[in-house]
Amino acid sequence: MKDREVILSKIREYTPEMVAVRRSFHRYPELGWCEFRTASIIAYQLRKLGYRILTGPEVTPEALRMGVPSKEELKEAYSEAIRNGAITEELLPMNGGFTGVVGILENGSGPVFGMRFDMDALPIQEADWGQEYRSVRPGIMHACGHDAHAAIGLTVAKILSECRNMWSGTVKFFFQPAEEGARGARTMAGSGLLDDVDMILGCHIFGREGRKEPHADVLPGAVGSLATTKMDVVFHGKSAHAGSFPEKGKNAILAMAAAITNLYATPRHSQGNSRVNVGTVHAGSGRNIIAEEACMELEVRGINSVVNRYMEEYARQVIEGAALMHGCTCTIETVGSCTSVESTDRLSSLVQEACTDMGLIPTSYLHEHSEGSEDFSYLMDTVKSHGGEAAFAILLNNTQGPGHSPTFDIDESAMANGAAVMLGTVLNVMGKETL
Amino acid sequence: MKDREVILSKIREYTPEMVAVRRSFHRYPELGWCEFRTASIIAYQLRKLGYRILTGPEVTPEALRMGVPSKEELKEAYSEAIRNGAITEELLPMNGGFTGVVGILENGSGPVFGMRFDMDALPIQEADWGQEYRSVRPGIMHACGHDAHAAIGLTVAKILSECRNMWSGTVKFFFQPAEEGARGARTMAGSGLLDDVDMILGCHIFGREGRKEPHADVLPGAVGSLATTKMDVVFHGKSAHAGSFPEKGKNAILAMAAAITNLYATPRHSQGNSRVNVGTVHAGSGRNIIAEEACMELEVRGINSVVNRYMEEYARQVIEGAALMHGCTCTIETVGSCTSVESTDRLSSLVQEACTDMGLIPTSYLHEHSEGSEDFSYLMDTVKSHGGEAAFAILLNNTQGPGHSPTFDIDESAMANGAAVMLGTVLNVMGKETL
Amino acid sequence: MKDREVILSKIREYTPEMVAVRRSFHRYPELGWCEFRTASIIAYQLRKLGYRILTGPEVTPEALRMGVPSKEELKEAYSEAIRNGAITEELLPMNGGFTGVVGILENGSGPVFGMRFDMDALPIQEADWGQEYRSVRPGIMHACGHDAHAAIGLTVAKILSECRNMWSGTVKFFFQPAEEGARGARTMAGSGLLDDVDMILGCHIFGREGRKEPHADVLPGAVGSLATTKMDVVFHGKSAHAGSFPEKGKNAILAMAAAITNLYATPRHSQGNSRVNVGTVHAGSGRNIIAEEACMELEVRGINSVVNRYMEEYARQVIEGAALMHGCTCTIETVGSCTSVESTDRLSSLVQEACTDMGLIPTSYLHEHSEGSEDFSYLMDTVKSHGGEAAFAILLNNTQGPGHSPTFDIDESAMANGAAVMLGTVLNVMGKETL
Amino acid sequence: MKDREVILSKIREYTPEMVAVRRSFHRYPELGWCEFRTASIIAYQLRKLGYRILTGPEVTPEALRMGVPSKEELKEAYSEAIRNGAITEELLPMNGGFTGVVGILENGSGPVFGMRFDMDALPIQEADWGQEYRSVRPGIMHACGHDAHAAIGLTVAKILSECRNMWSGTVKFFFQPAEEGARGARTMAGSGLLDDVDMILGCHIFGREGRKEPHADVLPGAVGSLATTKMDVVFHGKSAHAGSFPEKGKNAILAMAAAITNLYATPRHSQGNSRVNVGTVHAGSGRNIIAEEACMELEVRGINSVVNRYMEEYARQVIEGAALMHGCTCTIETVGSCTSVESTDRLSSLVQEACTDMGLIPTSYLHEHSEGSEDFSYLMDTVKSHGGEAAFAILLNNTQGPGHSPTFDIDESAMANGAAVMLGTVLNVMGKETL
Repeated sequence: MKDREVILSKIREYTPEMVAVRRSFHRYPELGWCEFRTASIIAYQLRKLGYRILTGPEVTPEALRMGVPSKEELKEAYSEAIRNGAITEELLPMNGGFTGVVGILENGSGPVFGMRFDMDALPIQEADWGQEYRSVRPGIMHACGHDAHAAIGLTVAKILSECRNMWSGTVKFFFQPAEEGARGARTMAGSGLLDDVDMILGCHIFGREGRKEPHADVLPGAVGSLATTKMDVVFHGKSAHAGSFPEKGKNAILAMAAAITNLYATPRHSQGNSRVNVGTVHAGSGRNIIAEEACMELEVRGINSVVNRYMEEYARQVIEGAALMHGCTCTIETVGSCTSVESTDRLSSLVQEACTDMGLIPTSYLHEHSEGSEDFSYLMDTVKSHGGEAAFAILLNNTQGPGHSPTFDIDESAMANGAAVMLGTVLNVMGKETL
Repeated sequence: MKDREVILSKIREYTPEMVAVRRSFHRYPELGWCEFRTASIIAYQLRKLGYRILTGPEVTPEALRMGVPSKEELKEAYSEAIRNGAITEELLPMNGGFTGVVGILENGSGPVFGMRFDMDALPIQEADWGQEYRSVRPGIMHACGHDAHAAIGLTVAKILSECRNMWSGTVKFFFQPAEEGARGARTMAGSGLLDDVDMILGCHIFGREGRKEPHADVLPGAVGSLATTKMDVVFHGKSAHAGSFPEKGKNAILAMAAAITNLYATPRHSQGNSRVNVGTVHAGSGRNIIAEEACMELEVRGINSVVNRYMEEYARQVIEGAALMHGCTCTIETVGSCTSVESTDRLSSLVQEACTDMGLIPTSYLHEHSEGSEDFSYLMDTVKSHGGEAAFAILLNNTQGPGHSPTFDIDESAMANGAAVMLGTVLNVMGKETL
Repeated sequence: MKDREVILSKIREYTPEMVAVRRSFHRYPELGWCEFRTASIIAYQLRKLGYRILTGPEVTPEALRMGVPSKEELKEAYSEAIRNGAITEELLPMNGGFTGVVGILENGSGPVFGMRFDMDALPIQEADWGQEYRSVRPGIMHACGHDAHAAIGLTVAKILSECRNMWSGTVKFFFQPAEEGARGARTMAGSGLLDDVDMILGCHIFGREGRKEPHADVLPGAVGSLATTKMDVVFHGKSAHAGSFPEKGKNAILAMAAAITNLYATPRHSQGNSRVNVGTVHAGSGRNIIAEEACMELEVRGINSVVNRYMEEYARQVIEGAALMHGCTCTIETVGSCTSVESTDRLSSLVQEACTDMGLIPTSYLHEHSEGSEDFSYLMDTVKSHGGEAAFAILLNNTQGPGHSPTFDIDESAMANGAAVMLGTVLNVMGKETL
Repeated sequence: MKDREVILSKIREYTPEMVAVRRSFHRYPELGWCEFRTASIIAYQLRKLGYRILTGPEVTPEALRMGVPSKEELKEAYSEAIRNGAITEELLPMNGGFTGVVGILENGSGPVFGMRFDMDALPIQEADWGQEYRSVRPGIMHACGHDAHAAIGLTVAKILSECRNMWSGTVKFFFQPAEEGARGARTMAGSGLLDDVDMILGCHIFGREGRKEPHADVLPGAVGSLATTKMDVVFHGKSAHAGSFPEKGKNAILAMAAAITNLYATPRHSQGNSRVNVGTVHAGSGRNIIAEEACMELEVRGINSVVNRYMEEYARQVIEGAALMHGCTCTIETVGSCTSVESTDRLSSLVQEACTDMGLIPTSYLHEHSEGSEDFSYLMDTVKSHGGEAAFAILLNNTQGPGHSPTFDIDESAMANGAAVMLGTVLNVMGKETL
């Protein structure tokens, strides 16, 4: 257990730095595909530690990206990142929103072990409760803990680089953009960079509240996050004066209203949970004009891919039927998606053991069910598709405020736990010390 | 004016008989296409008066009939008609629901003048307020005055037969089945029997209430009844257990509900009044079963044929869109229709003059608008299509209870007025006496 | 194990009789609250075996009954039962639909052990595939196995009566009416007859298809059937002629359609599965009349009582909102309900052991999830509410056709298994022989 | 006829100036309650002509205003008006959106004759077809002819001032803000300034297309514009994460969708045309968030006040029912309304005569029906309520493009006609010259 002691002592040593990095990311949050400052700092640090760095379209192929902001937004975010201290020498290949970073360290023969950390923030205005690291960007904040995930990733990378004597094989760090909206992982999964990965591990911070084992620190392998598909829909009608010629219009608002009610009315599925939500609607140019166009943003979810596909197909059918009803046409664009997270047994067991090794309390449930959606599933699916192992570890802690809310904050002690889980698993998979 | 005096005196003489005939028809009401007793009595009486009689498919071509009851219902009604005193020697060609009767009297050179009277009753249980002529048939009653129309027709035919010396030309009586549901007239219009008709006149009893001229007896020429289309719709889905496999069904009730709300939501039309009504719905086999089939009876109306067609087309689009929405299919059957009644100026003027001649008070409005629908429009359209004249006269009177309600009854004094209007117009069109 | 051997040999001996009884019940199926023939035979047989018999309102208190057929239907069913061989001396207290039977055998000191068997059939026309025991009653059949349950109950009662030397305590048999529609159990639960019951066990035949362990014979303790509430809803509007005065009506069909779509649109619940179904709708008197009244039968379900209550409350809110929208009023009548089946651990373990003792293969899952609803939950809840134990055992077998379908039939070999599970558990609970 | 000759010659003389004024107004269009430049020029010109000027809250009482833009918008428009040449010495009392102007000229004994002209433009981007007077303000244009109406008013005022010898009595000019959206007239009607008005005349430019008499210049008295009510609706719900806690939200979008479909489904009215339109909808903060708030702008219309009130009441009922359905609340704000324009017979006849006197062709129809809505009805109603006369004259001309469209333009020759109708009617009402 000597190596593990050394690792734990390094974690303790670097924790103040890890917290500072997290707070820096927190202060300058960046939306999906716009993580220029965050990603450039990560690339710079990894490069300094001796990692081989891949970034740009090689990591996030252009044709596979979904839900990319407009050119103007990307440009504005790029400029702002520079103003906020981005590392300019790393920025160039990221221009235009190619903010994924892969760092590789080859260290002798052995398996290829992947680790994934997400980096993006949310379009939410952070509450002000006196925190010195409060977001300086109006309307944007880290309300889901990705700032902490990225900082954990850097710390793990640093310790693995320093302790090359303890392990043999290759580690591959995936710093992923645009997890929110379920956009980035499917893109990275298409890069081919996971083809040689034997095992992949991701982690996410969650609150303990409502869990069965209130004192546990880690859930080794999550199973059952909801698969999801995000769609942008536009109904195209024809405008007319609503008083003078009501019959000459094709009412896009009327079509959309029919669609909304019937979308929610999608029958339940016997295999388990499903979801549908129309989150935003915008339509119409004036009270007395029959609306020519109506836009809505919606998402469906399902306990597994079968249920999610059922929900998506039903949604398309409802939308097309609603358009037909009122003489309109419609366009449906998929802007995000993820499958269900399904950790494999073997890697989950290794993670569970790692927890115990590193002095953490794992839940007795290897697997547990979660209601959210998480696009890490695509990376897991890719590794599993060629026979590899995959797991998603939940870092339980006493978060403040609900996720995705203005008052959200993490319990920073969970960060050291996260580094310990990751590093402990690496040792279990390719460590040189026999236990 | 001598001839008119004679005619008026004959009307007075025959009024008790006319009332008795009306009451006999009232006592034995018959639904559309089932007017076996009524039609057989009419055919028998006209034949006795010297009229040439046409009946059977020659009058109501089989291929053109709409909304015909089932074979069992027709057979049952036929048997009941015999039990209730139908004239058996006239019945044979009517078997199977061919209950239209045309009576022709050729009387020298001159125009061909058509007159139309409808015969069918409604599926309503008559209220009991002590009337000795109350319907003996449960659930069926004359709640729209067609019993009176038919009796007026017989009286007019009798007097014209007796007074052949007063007029020259041909009169053609159209006793029409199945006016309710707008089914019979379009069928008769396709028989070819209107091709030689120069003018056609119909009449209908209506209450005075709410009219601008409360003391008037007759509105000479109605204009503006609503065109209508009646449709029977079935949604075809797939049943499944609603608890065990909600996603395996195709929910016909859900599709129908979406259709209903959106049918009523059909945008208004700038040309004027439109209507839509889903009058009945029936669906489902059990609470916990997803309904395999859902049926509804609906109708649309429009102030003119353009508006009615718009409503019909929109309805079809909504129904198909609703079926598509929920993975169902649908069948739409047209079971009745009529265009808008539009009396022509010249014949309306002749009717107006006839009123004055016969001592009745016409409204000063030659034309007036009515909210109901009336399939006599098809006979009018046919005559007008070859350059003829057509009018629909409203016999105003103090009816009891609303039309199509259990307490409805007519003011029988309107019947003599009806005969006078008809006969006065015949004299104005082809009478020998110069005024 | 001697006693268990004796019991097994008796089961083998009585199996032909048990099958014959099941087929007799199958041939004369009876709907809920109308099980006059079935219940009278059961009461008669139990009485002969020495059981004390309770029946009539004492077992199913009048005020607590839900979803009772009309007086005419009850009377008709009563007469038909007599024609089909009901035992007349037992019938009198059951007249009017009080068809529950409780049989009690006190046999020394010891616990009170309850067993429950349901008796009612379904309104389904049985398919004809040559089976000699096909239902003779048109439109009624045992499509859910209750015929077998009742026959198992009689056999268990007979063997326990014959083997009084083997056990000590009291057994209490609950033969329950009206399980379909979830009506009978809540009524019996209110009788007070479960107040002294320490443990209660029920069973149900289900197909093996789709189960994880295809060779298992019995699932010892079911958990997670859906709680449900069944409601009959009437919308009360005002009729008017749809062409003449569309604004004067209050359109009950329009209100119902709004309700239906929005009922299905009830948001999902984070605790798990929910269901809603409008299974039947009937409304309207004529195509051109605005419907005065509209009726629908609906049900909601939930994975537990919290979710079911949420669904029920949301449904009530939707129905009231829909009525308000279109100027109507509504009445909502609860006609059935059940909570979620939740077998307790201790009794489930005893059942599991009993399976092994009696040579049957239990699934390794003590508990498992099922999508259906089962009102035995009320009896379980009642026993559990005073600290007792309850379990619901699933008798796995190769059924033919889906449950609640015309082609359904059981694999009769499951009946002997059912008797074995019941008797084995009785021995485990209060048997005299030490294992 | 000498006076009329003089007047006509003055109209001819001033037409180039009238056109220039109209084009100046056209180039600098201003939205309702923001007509600072237009109104200040009008006040300044009238004052120069010797009119007594009222403006500010005295003309448009603060408490009665509806649909007023935000303070920011008013301020911005005020500044822009100054930049565009508003007359600053008239602006002060108008600050904050009090842009109504009343000009009074007392000229001996006689009746008080009111004339009304509206001034506001529409939020439409004007098409560019080379016109030198194209709107310089992006997204705002005169697409309804109010620029011409205001210019006509100034010309009429000038000529009446110059020709005081020809008439005796008082003329009162009402330059009304915010006709679009039906906001300004009801406000002015509440000022008390119409209490002494004996007759009031308004005018509006409309295209000839589709009229029965294509060569007519003027329709003397419009009857039957649609009464209307404009409403802003907000549904208030509760937000929640749509994936994690769908049951914890109150879905404002779902409530709004139910409302929209059912609003359009409001049953038709037997008295005639009705309208309903939801013209804009905006809701939601994110795809995966249950919307907390949903806003829509809607309007209803009716052929008369009875029908409009029916539509408004039904709409309120639907909106409240929809909110109730989905656990939301709602607020409904009336932001505009007008009654039906109903010109009186006597003043319409005087206008008709004036047309002939001035060499214009009136239609033979004194009154005619129009599909639009026009809030001048409130001023008419106020005058009629104390026994006065009111008429609304339609200036027929060959407009370009449909009203309320980017390509709309008037045929400027109609402006001289408008002045002639107004002045001719003044002479007919209080001219000194006997014809």
